[in-house]
Amino acid sequence: MERFSIIYRLTGTEADARGKAEDICLEQTVEFPGELLPEGHIRDNIVGRIEEFLPDGTNAYRATVSFDIESAAGELTQLLNVIFGNISIKPGYRVEEIRLPEALTKTYQGPRFGKSGLREWLGVAERPLLFSALKPMGMSVRELARLAYQFALGGIDIIKDDHGLTDQSFAPFDERVRACAEAVERANRETGLHSIYVANVTAPYGEIIRRARFAKENGARGLLIAPGLAGFDTMRCLAEDDTIGLPVFSHPAVLGSYVLNPQHGISHFALFGQITRLSGADGSIYPNFGGRFSFSREECRGIVRGTSAAMGHFKTIFPCPGGGMSISSIPDMIKLYGADVIFLVGGGLFKHGLDIVENCRYFRSLVDSVGCRHGDRN
Amino acid sequence: MERFSIIYRLTGTEADARGKAEDICLEQTVEFPGELLPEGHIRDNIVGRIEEFLPDGTNAYRATVSFDIESAAGELTQLLNVIFGNISIKPGYRVEEIRLPEALTKTYQGPRFGKSGLREWLGVAERPLLFSALKPMGMSVRELARLAYQFALGGIDIIKDDHGLTDQSFAPFDERVRACAEAVERANRETGLHSIYVANVTAPYGEIIRRARFAKENGARGLLIAPGLAGFDTMRCLAEDDTIGLPVFSHPAVLGSYVLNPQHGISHFALFGQITRLSGADGSIYPNFGGRFSFSREECRGIVRGTSAAMGHFKTIFPCPGGGMSISSIPDMIKLYGADVIFLVGGGLFKHGLDIVENCRYFRSLVDSVGCRHGDRN
Repeated sequence: MERFSIIYRLTGTEADARGKAEDICLEQTVEFPGELLPEGHIRDNIVGRIEEFLPDGTNAYRATVSFDIESAAGELTQLLNVIFGNISIKPGYRVEEIRLPEALTKTYQGPRFGKSGLREWLGVAERPLLFSALKPMGMSVRELARLAYQFALGGIDIIKDDHGLTDQSFAPFDERVRACAEAVERANRETGLHSIYVANVTAPYGEIIRRARFAKENGARGLLIAPGLAGFDTMRCLAEDDTIGLPVFSHPAVLGSYVLNPQHGISHFALFGQITRLSGADGSIYPNFGGRFSFSREECRGIVRGTSAAMGHFKTIFPCPGGGMSISSIPDMIKLYGADVIFLVGGGLFKHGLDIVENCRYFRSLVDSVGCRHGDRN
Repeated sequence: MERFSIIYRLTGTEADARGKAEDICLEQTVEFPGELLPEGHIRDNIVGRIEEFLPDGTNAYRATVSFDIESAAGELTQLLNVIFGNISIKPGYRVEEIRLPEALTKTYQGPRFGKSGLREWLGVAERPLLFSALKPMGMSVRELARLAYQFALGGIDIIKDDHGLTDQSFAPFDERVRACAEAVERANRETGLHSIYVANVTAPYGEIIRRARFAKENGARGLLIAPGLAGFDTMRCLAEDDTIGLPVFSHPAVLGSYVLNPQHGISHFALFGQITRLSGADGSIYPNFGGRFSFSREECRGIVRGTSAAMGHFKTIFPCPGGGMSISSIPDMIKLYGADVIFLVGGGLFKHGLDIVENCRYFRSLVDSVGCRHGDRN
């Protein structure tokens, strides 16, 4: 049986770190005293196996541990459990990278659109894409739809519900989705552009698929979901569902605790890159460096790598840096990200000046000439 | 409109911590520059409100922030988002306690059984309950069922799948559930006891409800789910579903990252107590102090408080300490936990001696006389 490998960063002396690697082998699989395991298949294959163990800077080691692919049962929930389930409860273990053989990646569809599919969906060949959010929470459907119209008129490519908009009485889901999708479509008819409205389907378990189908049937052309709230496998299910077939954007709500401590958790590369991609997202939203969150430039580079590193048949996906970004920081962002990026500017669009459509146009002007050998396809 | 309150522990100087409290008010609701918010309902009600701000030891403050219940939309996913969504991505914020008014708790069913319902379900009036897990992963259905039989014969009250057993080819879900439920029932006929088999339904999104119903129809008398993998709202849905109607046990896999850093995340009290209970679990499994995990005695006390503190109409639930506990530590555990506890001993049952049935009987003998004014009802 084939095996998949996880690279862990383990903190401590060499003896400590080796003990942690050995612990992973048991804790993430059999949860059983090693000395009492029966001889044969369980001991030889089911228990994790340390494939490599190397120093990694001061007081830390990198251990590559492999697991029988059958331990993950072809299920994303169980794969994540083998990767980080019980050891999440112990300090000094960090998942750095996931390495899946084709025998495992082939059981997942991966991102439906990926970068090139999303560029086709939006009719934009090369420049950075623009993303904004309908807010603040508390606005009525009418106000949100008006804003959606203004964003689209100003040339924002992707207009999403703020991730806190779900089904509040002041802007109920069904009514909001209909109105915002219609507003963006109306602006498109005026501009000749192809802006899309993206509905937030982070919702109770029994509502998610219904809302996604309703959104599709009523003109939404993308979906937003926070896998930290709804589950990574729920996002996979949305992405793989052929009756839905819309681009999926992943929101980082409640996931921060996994990445904030460099000696624990999951790396930015693995969480917002690899796992998000494995779970079918076409765009991975995360807080950019220099905004109101705390990610470093290097951590953001890690996410970009994770969205594009080779990973079986999975398409590469868009990094979507956002979170307190101002329009004025865009030129600096382009230096780091180049053209293959989606810039998410929310509140910052309102800060730039009083005319929101003009602010959008200015935002757009900053990216229009970037990576534009062919220009927009339209 | 009524408001719910969250108590946060914020790290830093008084000015830092106050800045964090003000940040929570915006970040968890409108995600919008405060100075640009329109006058009226949004600014007055939707934005969070600092109700109290007090020092909490050195370099930390406790802020009580209230939110309009409508911001949570009657949805558990969105409630958790308001509580900790975006600020999970910032260091120095910790959720200490959740305070929900009746207007909000009444939208949730809460635990179906709770402590007294589960005692009735098991026919055990007062003593601590015994919990064990079928393992190691890699065993066949036949071997697991044999173990389930032995556990039940030895008087273990609750016999669950190890949380890593899902639907692996070596022990497929349907076949395993049928065989293990039957094995426990067979032992019950011999002993006259009322042991139950609990099936692990942590699974892909589209499979969870099917597996839960299959488990119920085939003799499982409880369900195990890891909300960190499947979503807290998924657990709520399992618990509230009247067509299932089984006790639900929550497993802490991948949740450790939320609690390990005392300056960040969610308190043990709130996560393994309050949120687990709000999500409908009847028993909250967590790693006990003194085992192979790192929780302290005080953190475990916090969990016990969270499972039983007043919380609307919600029933109190069982703390289920486990994780590397040995049978010999039971007397010490009883000192801390008293009789209203479920002791989860897994691998430790195998370590005690070669005869697994005898080990279970010994485990049982340690609790049989505890809190036993009336003795078992049977």
